[in-house]
Amino acid sequence: MAEVRNKQVLLNDYVRGFPKESDMAITSSTLKLKLPEGSKGVVLKNLYLSCDPYMRGRMTNHERESYVDSFKPGSPITGYGVCKVLESGDPNLKEGDLVWGMTGWEEYTVLNTTQGLFKIQHTTDIPLSYYTGILGMPGMTAYVGLYELCSPKKGEYVYVSAASGAVGQLVGQFAKLLGCYVVGSAGTKEKVDLLKNKFGFDEAFNYKEEADWDAALKRYFPQGIDIYFENVGGKMLDAVLLNLRVHARIAACGMISQYNLEHPEGVHNLTQLISKRANIVGFVVGEYYHLYQTFLDLVVPGIKEGKIVYVEDVAEGLDSAPRALVGLFSGRNVGKQVVLVSHD
Amino acid sequence: MAEVRNKQVLLNDYVRGFPKESDMAITSSTLKLKLPEGSKGVVLKNLYLSCDPYMRGRMTNHERESYVDSFKPGSPITGYGVCKVLESGDPNLKEGDLVWGMTGWEEYTVLNTTQGLFKIQHTTDIPLSYYTGILGMPGMTAYVGLYELCSPKKGEYVYVSAASGAVGQLVGQFAKLLGCYVVGSAGTKEKVDLLKNKFGFDEAFNYKEEADWDAALKRYFPQGIDIYFENVGGKMLDAVLLNLRVHARIAACGMISQYNLEHPEGVHNLTQLISKRANIVGFVVGEYYHLYQTFLDLVVPGIKEGKIVYVEDVAEGLDSAPRALVGLFSGRNVGKQVVLVSHD
Repeated sequence: MAEVRNKQVLLNDYVRGFPKESDMAITSSTLKLKLPEGSKGVVLKNLYLSCDPYMRGRMTNHERESYVDSFKPGSPITGYGVCKVLESGDPNLKEGDLVWGMTGWEEYTVLNTTQGLFKIQHTTDIPLSYYTGILGMPGMTAYVGLYELCSPKKGEYVYVSAASGAVGQLVGQFAKLLGCYVVGSAGTKEKVDLLKNKFGFDEAFNYKEEADWDAALKRYFPQGIDIYFENVGGKMLDAVLLNLRVHARIAACGMISQYNLEHPEGVHNLTQLISKRANIVGFVVGEYYHLYQTFLDLVVPGIKEGKIVYVEDVAEGLDSAPRALVGLFSGRNVGKQVVLVSHD
Repeated sequence: MAEVRNKQVLLNDYVRGFPKESDMAITSSTLKLKLPEGSKGVVLKNLYLSCDPYMRGRMTNHERESYVDSFKPGSPITGYGVCKVLESGDPNLKEGDLVWGMTGWEEYTVLNTTQGLFKIQHTTDIPLSYYTGILGMPGMTAYVGLYELCSPKKGEYVYVSAASGAVGQLVGQFAKLLGCYVVGSAGTKEKVDLLKNKFGFDEAFNYKEEADWDAALKRYFPQGIDIYFENVGGKMLDAVLLNLRVHARIAACGMISQYNLEHPEGVHNLTQLISKRANIVGFVVGEYYHLYQTFLDLVVPGIKEGKIVYVEDVAEGLDSAPRALVGLFSGRNVGKQVVLVSHD
């Protein structure tokens, strides 16, 4: 095979505080599109790349053990993506197959293993980019956190923060399908409108327009909150703790408000967990992929029948990837942030 | 029946900050030891009264709903106790029976219902006072928190704070019986010695002599903590969060360090719950009394065989009750704090 140009997004150095576009660099090199002799890996052409908040953690040099490795300064960023197989040393994958999983922020990626790649059973009525979102890691995160860890019952009161994001928009729709009362919060009027008019949340509010989140939650949940899907942490969690119902459940997959702080905020109202016999469960979706087929069987028909919708914010071209990733932390994205690298 | 003198401990007024002996008053009045006509309640003679940290919450005027009602200023304090039945309108209880449950801080108490009273199957080889501790609410708290909510496995690493107290001393012993590695912390050398030499903890330390609790926990748990039995909250919880193992479980029945603070401390390390896929479960033992007989079947033989021991700190006489209760919050008690009102 020929050598190709391979544009890449590199991390310049470890990041402190909010990441900036200038923390990353775009470079080009050439790559021989050929697996090493005997490799059981794959050569991939990257089609879509996923921007996810957890990636902020990988930009930090971890003094303490973390559930994700740090990126390597000077090397390409890695993350979830949708890719086309160009060459495969794995008998289960062949040229032309589509997969999603961990790949590099570059045009082409050579992996020495196919472990962690999921083969996509592509049908033309589902956008391929969905495998970075609703049908990928964020979708599974919403499913696991809500269905597996919070056991929602019809009529329960569900609150979702960061509700228009990749995960939140699904949590709310899943909870509605289960007959829950769902309120979401987001940071712009446009997002609040999406929550109410597109995703069918019962209510939604702009947290930036509320001076007192405890008071806001009391207004939207006069009966209290049974389930909180925690994407935010810090002061929002503190306000939620003051509004729990007895036996409330909090599933925490992320605390985006804390990722860029040198010193995380204090949460003061944890004694409420005792008086309300409530729990907080932290989880990492990677431990639940044995449920992936069950999840697909639930969600794919929902998408096809129009019962579940998904909003993406697609940045065009690898050059736009740093800005797209950085934008997550100021809430610039509307819906799931994706980077389109190549249409095919 | 004759009128008797009934000495009582009254709450003077709602308390802010640390409770003081002067927040309570001892008074005497007379009481007719007779049930009202048709009553299904009981007349009780109080033998032992229990001093428990949760009682601090009842000394506050709750603006927010709480799992315990506030005490009434000017009325006797109420709490768990061991009592002798003098008269009963309940066919399941008769004169001379011994019971434990909610009673008043006074010599005699008239209850209009027997709901929530447990009949004691008294055997002379078990001290009656144990029904305020190891065989009462604190014992059930240790059992439920450890067995039901943390599912300990042999070889797991268990940390207990406030470890020489009414609940902690049992959590540690239960965990040892299950084959766990157990470390406890307490606030005096005497208590630390008890943990190691009397209760059989693998290690114990004096938290007041450790400037850096994170460092102390790293020393005692180089592998990290699987189970934390949370009695303390605040800064101690923060240090524990930095030392969790993957899939750690935290059972929280109380956070004594926070009860007397106008503004509870902030807990900063909750993102660790996510990276360690850990949980915090708050619970109130009152929801688990259907397990009481199962619990007795486990613990009573353990006591009789000397496999489980229990240390009590017995204050003599109702006059000593305010000081005993207040002492809990400075850790003056060594072991379970009981007040002996009458031997029979």
